[in-house]
Amino acid sequence: MIRVGILGYGNLGRGMEYAISQSADMELCCIFTRREPSSIKPAMEGVRICSVSDAPRFTQEIDVMVLCGGSATDLPEQTPRFASLFNVVDSFDTHANIPEHFSKVDAAAKSGGKTAIISAGWDPGLFSINRLMAEAILPSGSSYTFWGKGVSQGHSDAIRRIEGVADAKQYTIPMQSALDAVRNGDNPELGTRQKHTRECFVVAHEGADLSRIEREIVTMPNYFDEYDTTVHFISARELASEHAGMPHGGFVIRSGATGKGGENRQIIEYGLKLDSNPEFTASVLAACTRAAYRFNKEGAAGCKTVFDIPIAYLSSKSGEELRKEYL
Amino acid sequence: MIRVGILGYGNLGRGMEYAISQSADMELCCIFTRREPSSIKPAMEGVRICSVSDAPRFTQEIDVMVLCGGSATDLPEQTPRFASLFNVVDSFDTHANIPEHFSKVDAAAKSGGKTAIISAGWDPGLFSINRLMAEAILPSGSSYTFWGKGVSQGHSDAIRRIEGVADAKQYTIPMQSALDAVRNGDNPELGTRQKHTRECFVVAHEGADLSRIEREIVTMPNYFDEYDTTVHFISARELASEHAGMPHGGFVIRSGATGKGGENRQIIEYGLKLDSNPEFTASVLAACTRAAYRFNKEGAAGCKTVFDIPIAYLSSKSGEELRKEYL
Repeated sequence: MIRVGILGYGNLGRGMEYAISQSADMELCCIFTRREPSSIKPAMEGVRICSVSDAPRFTQEIDVMVLCGGSATDLPEQTPRFASLFNVVDSFDTHANIPEHFSKVDAAAKSGGKTAIISAGWDPGLFSINRLMAEAILPSGSSYTFWGKGVSQGHSDAIRRIEGVADAKQYTIPMQSALDAVRNGDNPELGTRQKHTRECFVVAHEGADLSRIEREIVTMPNYFDEYDTTVHFISARELASEHAGMPHGGFVIRSGATGKGGENRQIIEYGLKLDSNPEFTASVLAACTRAAYRFNKEGAAGCKTVFDIPIAYLSSKSGEELRKEYL
Repeated sequence: MIRVGILGYGNLGRGMEYAISQSADMELCCIFTRREPSSIKPAMEGVRICSVSDAPRFTQEIDVMVLCGGSATDLPEQTPRFASLFNVVDSFDTHANIPEHFSKVDAAAKSGGKTAIISAGWDPGLFSINRLMAEAILPSGSSYTFWGKGVSQGHSDAIRRIEGVADAKQYTIPMQSALDAVRNGDNPELGTRQKHTRECFVVAHEGADLSRIEREIVTMPNYFDEYDTTVHFISARELASEHAGMPHGGFVIRSGATGKGGENRQIIEYGLKLDSNPEFTASVLAACTRAAYRFNKEGAAGCKTVFDIPIAYLSSKSGEELRKEYL
């Protein structure tokens, strides 16, 4: 059994609790929180809850610590800090800062003889694997990533900060016409506006100026101004009943050409349709937890990403079983 | 530059020649054939053609030998024989015999300090990776593999052996209703007849008994009797003009459940739409050639499968580049 710790108990941490309960080769040792431990209600009964400050005392009881904090402020500090004490897995997803995060975590993990796997999840993560694999196989071609239909937390938060907005949910939606052209092998050049649209469901405070709110949304730099954005004003009740979930997903498509003069079109498509983004991300972290455990057993200290993991390491089955049953 | 040899020059070998020409980090050293070398017309100019019997004299000139023979009789003999002399890659696809093939190739490769990668391609190969990865991530769920629409060489050959048949081409076609149910998360139990149909285009000899031929096809044990099969009799000219290609493809779909009581449906889908099956298989072999080369540089002797390959090894780019550009 792999003894797992969860550090951070938001949506992702709770998803991790469920993912561990579905993994026959793992047991949850403890959930660590920065909140008052007694205020946490875990999903399962009998789960131990401790303060993050107590975590360093658990180095002998935990094989892998899964860091379930956010990429903005939690993980840049937590992953390097805990990587010298535990084998760790995180879902750091600020693409531009991955090289810096990697360096810091690598140094910490090596200093403690531990293994860290960073930026696991589906993007970065499974989508990264598929982008790389498809391009290595089809060097001549074009790659496309589409996201959605799904809820973007960052865009929903941005709308909530507008004056007069009580609550909001934003969906990113891939454009069917763009998907069709890519799948058809047309290799289109797609600008931002041609790939995705954005749909916003907004609860306004009573008496708020709805047309000003809508204008502020659709013209918001970086978040919305480069997209075709639709705004719907709805009631708090409707938001709660119709938009409570956290669905997401998307597609990675490589359209390549092979053979004489590139005469043959070859299309590789990877797609996800997820009812729950945090639970799925946690499921990927659970598989990577196996890999971190196995790497460390083999003495591989330092930081890894999904690119460094043999797929067999994600599974609890032996090489013989895998070759017989899955190849 | 990775110096590559091609052993066997049928459709796959020719695809390999094109794949190497698309790979900036590879050069083709020589094509080896059992036929008279002067009878071979390579796709590119200036390619050296030698007899298979001369191959052992090339151990210093070739980094990886790609074995492009068939799984029925060529590879079971060739891969163990050449794995002690060269790093090798093959596309052995007789699923039931993979464990035995692995053992023989592993012993040979270890005896020569070489690295072998067997059963590369798309199924086994990319589909295997996706079956394993999806199940490791979503342990609770159902997996489905669909093939097609594509030409099955084995089924086409079986039809050609029927008396009165001059030529034939058989397409395997996934059933849309089954695909829709799986994508919808219904987790259907699907029998053979519910997953695929078979469509046959047959050129009969003049005066042959067409209804007997049709009956022999649709009742042929193992090949057709468990499927709904359609037979079309066409002219040799129509077969040549409309059915000359070797398209194939298919889908690996995992439909899983996560969270409280499995309330959230999560669907992972991997799909291929290929104009040329042999050229795409060769493109996968080319990527695995990089992995075999790198494994051997690191001193990893023995037999590997796609499950053992870190995805980064399929690419010629460095870890830094990959983390920056693809993660």
